[in-house]
This record gives sequence, C-alpha cells and structure tokens, in this order.
Amino acid sequence: MSNTNRQLILRSRPKGLLASGDLQLVETALPSLVDGQALARVKYLSMDPTMRVWMAERDSYLPAVKLGEVMRCFGLAEIVDSKTPEFKKGDKVVGLVGVQEYVVIDERDKNNFQKVPPVPFVSDTAFLGVLGITGLTAYFGMTDVAKPEKGETLVVSAAAGATGSIAGQIGKIHGCRVVGIAGSDEKCRWLTDDLGFEAAVNYKQPDWKEKLAAATPKGIDIDYENVGGDIMHAVLERMNLHGRVVLCGLISGYTKEDPALESFGMILVKRLRVQGFIILDYAPKFMEAAMQLGKWKMFGKIKDRETIVEGLAKTPEAINRLFTGGNIGKLIVKV
Amino acid sequence: MSNTNRQLILRSRPKGLLASGDLQLVETALPSLVDGQALARVKYLSMDPTMRVWMAERDSYLPAVKLGEVMRCFGLAEIVDSKTPEFKKGDKVVGLVGVQEYVVIDERDKNNFQKVPPVPFVSDTAFLGVLGITGLTAYFGMTDVAKPEKGETLVVSAAAGATGSIAGQIGKIHGCRVVGIAGSDEKCRWLTDDLGFEAAVNYKQPDWKEKLAAATPKGIDIDYENVGGDIMHAVLERMNLHGRVVLCGLISGYTKEDPALESFGMILVKRLRVQGFIILDYAPKFMEAAMQLGKWKMFGKIKDRETIVEGLAKTPEAINRLFTGGNIGKLIVKV
Repeated sequence: MSNTNRQLILRSRPKGLLASGDLQLVETALPSLVDGQALARVKYLSMDPTMRVWMAERDSYLPAVKLGEVMRCFGLAEIVDSKTPEFKKGDKVVGLVGVQEYVVIDERDKNNFQKVPPVPFVSDTAFLGVLGITGLTAYFGMTDVAKPEKGETLVVSAAAGATGSIAGQIGKIHGCRVVGIAGSDEKCRWLTDDLGFEAAVNYKQPDWKEKLAAATPKGIDIDYENVGGDIMHAVLERMNLHGRVVLCGLISGYTKEDPALESFGMILVKRLRVQGFIILDYAPKFMEAAMQLGKWKMFGKIKDRETIVEGLAKTPEAINRLFTGGNIGKLIVKV
Repeated sequence: MSNTNRQLILRSRPKGLLASGDLQLVETALPSLVDGQALARVKYLSMDPTMRVWMAERDSYLPAVKLGEVMRCFGLAEIVDSKTPEFKKGDKVVGLVGVQEYVVIDERDKNNFQKVPPVPFVSDTAFLGVLGITGLTAYFGMTDVAKPEKGETLVVSAAAGATGSIAGQIGKIHGCRVVGIAGSDEKCRWLTDDLGFEAAVNYKQPDWKEKLAAATPKGIDIDYENVGGDIMHAVLERMNLHGRVVLCGLISGYTKEDPALESFGMILVKRLRVQGFIILDYAPKFMEAAMQLGKWKMFGKIKDRETIVEGLAKTPEAINRLFTGGNIGKLIVKV
C-alpha cells in the first residue's frame, strides 16, 4: 500500500465544460488512522451530471465544493485498514468518496457509506448504477412522482443515460408506451432493440420534433425530464392535459454560467411541486365553493373590492389596466 | 329596448398592450329570437387577464378568438326576452356573454350560463368577483392545490388583484403568514391594513427583494403565483424545500409576443404537475428500492449498461462526457 494519496482538487470553477486545470491532480501524504477511522481504497467513481452543479459557486441541494477541496464524487471503495468495528478490512462501501485514491472514513459518518452486499451475478459497479444512485433516482422518480399507469405514454430525455435508461424500463414494467430521446442513432438503437422502448428519437436530426410527434400519437402523459431547455420545451408542447413532469435533471443548463438562475433549476433544487391549473376543471364544484366563499364574506372573513369602469367602449382600456397595474381588486366593465 | 346591438369585435391581434383598433366597436341588428332562445342584456363585464391570452393567435385552454368575432368575455346579463322555459325574463346569469350589449343564449348552452341567485347583502357584481371565477380560482388554487397548513408562509403575487386578494385571505383563514406582492403603496396598504396580510411588498421599489426577504424570515412554503417572470423568480429564490407553487397566472408574459412559448406557460395551460426531486430525500427507502431493482434485473426486466473509464486523472474528461453525449448508460471511472 502506497502512503501517498492522489487526489483531484477543485482549483478553479469551470466556465461551461471543464477545462484543464479546473481539477488539479495533487499527491498528498496519507494520514495515519486514529481510533474510530477506517481507510478505504477507492475503486470506482460514479460520474454524475450533478458534479458539475457542485463545482459552481452557488450552493445547490448540497453546498458548493470549495476551491482547494477534493472534488466531491460518489464512488465505491474497499476498506484496507480499520480502527473501528464499524468497518472491516475487505468491506466494500458506496458513498461520497471524493475523486481520490484513498478516503478516510470516520465511524460517525457510517450512515453516509452504505455497505455493498455480495450479490450473485451482480457486479460491484451495479451499486453505482442500476442499484445505486442513478437507478434509485429512476425508481423513485417513476414510482413516487410519475406514478405511471398502463397505456400511458412516457417520454424520457437523456434516455440512454444511467437514469433515463432505467426510468424508461420501469415505465415498460408499468405498461407504458415508452419513447426515448437521445443524441445518436446508436443510442436510439439500444433503447428500441435492447431495452424494448417503443420508439427512440435522435434529437440531433433536424426532423426530430416530427419524429417525436409521430412516436407519440396520443400525446405525452409523463415526461421524465433529465435535460431541460429546448428538448424539454418540445416535450412540453406535446403533453396531454394534467400530464406529469418528473423534473429529475436539467443537464442542458448545468454547463451554463449560472444554471441556478433558471426558475426550473430552483424547482429541481428545492423539490418544488408546481401545479398548473385552470379553473374550468372545477366547474362541478363551483356552487359548493361559492357557498363557502359567501359564508366567509358574510362573516367578514373575506373582503373583496371592485373597480367598475362604465361603458362597453372602455373595454380595451380596461383590459390594458390589468397589465399596467392600474386597478385594485376585481375590475369590471358596466355596460 | 333598442333593436341594435353594440359589440366589440376582434379586428387585429394586439402586439403587447391593446392598441386602438384591435377591438372595434360595431353596431349590428339584433336578431329575432327563435324557439329555444333567450335574449339577455349584458350588465357587467368581468375584466380578466386571460382575455389577452384569448386574443393571441395561438389556442390556449380555449380556442383563440377569431378575427371578426365578438371579443370573448365573462359577464353578467339579465334576460329581457325569452322563447325558452329555461330562462325567464328578469333572470340574471353569468357566463361568457362577450363584449356586447346583448347576447342571445340558446337553451342548449344553458350549462354555460349560471343563474345568479338573489343573496341578501351580496351585489350582483360579486358573482363576477369574490363569488365568481376569480374568487373560485383563488378557492381551488388554495384548498386543492396549495393545501395550506397553519403556520406556513404564503406569498401571493398580484396580491391586490381579484384572485390574489382572495387567495391571500384564504391563506389567513388557514392560519398562514401571508405576504403580498403588489405594484403600489396604496395596494400594499389595502393588503395589510384592510385584509390583514402580515406584510406587503411593493415590487416597484428598488429594495423590494430585501423587503420580501425581511417579510419571510422562515422562507416561503407556498407561492400563489399570478405573475411569472422576475417576480416569480425572486419568490422561487426564497422557497423552502418541498414548497408548493400554485401556478395560477403568468400575467407578466401575456402581453409578450408569444407567451405560450414559455415552458411555464405550458405548465399552466396544460395543468401539468411539475415535481422537482432530489434522490437524497428517499434515503430511508434505498434498500427496499435496490432490492426491487435487483429483482427486476435478475429476471431480465431491466437491463443496464456501463461505460468504464480507467484512471483517476481521466475524471475531468469523464465529467465533460456527461454533457457532450459521449457515453451510453452509467459512466464510471475506475481508479
């Protein structure tokens, strides 16, 4: 065992894609373990789009990585030395190991490092993929957020990615018609030929929107969204009423200057639930609600205010007042 | 009774605010009623931001008003002549009466014209406001979408408007701390002094964001959003995790060239539910889910694919590959 550790340190925050020097390779001496610690040899690092988000200056759902710190990263590591009963030599763990060869794990952090059980026919790396963060993301995004029903149309963007490919297959398991959006014909072939997606659309072809339309003749009920931007826009255009968008990633924005400034970015980072609604859908309940409002009004719990403009011909001005802030309360034209 | 009808016809589609001539006043002869019809005198027109949306070329949740048609509008009308038992002379109805003095109502359309009951102490116009579409919008947006809980912080934009003022008060009834955003000090005073909002912020003051922050010391749990754009952005910035956004209106976009092109516009028009989520919230259920995924993988219901790059120092390139489309499935660095 070497007594040095090679680490990649965040030296400067990337603009756009990473440039050489943003992450700097350094060699440091391995610290001696103290009681309660274990040393693990990092074997695999999971490459996740969220890493780029962590490199930006702004905190997201986790604090930004500080300049000079080891780059944060999920990975799989094997315990090679231990001064704690929590971890034994040979144990394999997954967690935020960092981009480095060795990681010192404190027993107080044990909940952040999940032990990998030996499972027949399952490689260790599966615990970074299908059985790890990306597979779990697809699982909960589909079962808990999308709640797919048989016969619904599901569109997945970045469909050939680690999360999208699993999300689409979970849609298949639930009986959805699944259409993937990906960036090459090879990826598309994998989705349809190997994973059984009903269709896959290569968004780098100029007619991809027409192909998306052809592949979703009944519109789209669920958008498992990993990408954002123009791709999301084209999908939203074809959504059916009351559809569901699982906002899982906005990868198209992660390499932009300040992705978090996009409102959609905040929906993601803050796990917001955004619900569009149009009052007409509630028509059968109007009377019931008006009675409740009337009661509140009667008991003085609700006050309302009206601005009444006289004359049919004043309507255009009145409409404009709605947008120029020229009235308070309900604006009404008296004919 | 006059035998002519004055009507405002959509002559051209506005760019931005309405210009003179977009709606043109015309006089037409009143048609004679045939059996099954009633004639109503329009008394009040409800001015709603959505009217501007209906004037755009693109269909929204209702078809666009066609050029040459009477401008669509909610209003209150009184039956003045009838050849149907469904409506009696003197009945008052609310519905899509159009911007005109008289409207002919067919008995087959009776469900689109709600009779206004005579309620003591309630003016007719209340059925266009607090007890009408805008009040009902606030009611369902709050009770069915926001589901406010005691002690939560609710922010309402366009808070002095017909919908916002009711939405905020419903928040008060449910025990929320309610903060309004409005465009004048007078409006803000009305919100705090008359309606009992805890605070109101005038977004036309340069320091309004600081004031919003001061008024929401525990962040924002519910955004009742009527405005969109920069105002929504500032509110989203202060949202708490798992907050709820009731996307009721996007009035700041309605006077723009093609408001429906904004993705948020589609969330509204299509009543989508958008749910941001971050996998970390599901940590307690990880094992359960991994077992399910593992079972699916074992039975061949799910396939996964990995791309493994060798060498710690390849990490920056590997991160970039996530954004340039250079891999399929799960990307992993072998250290």
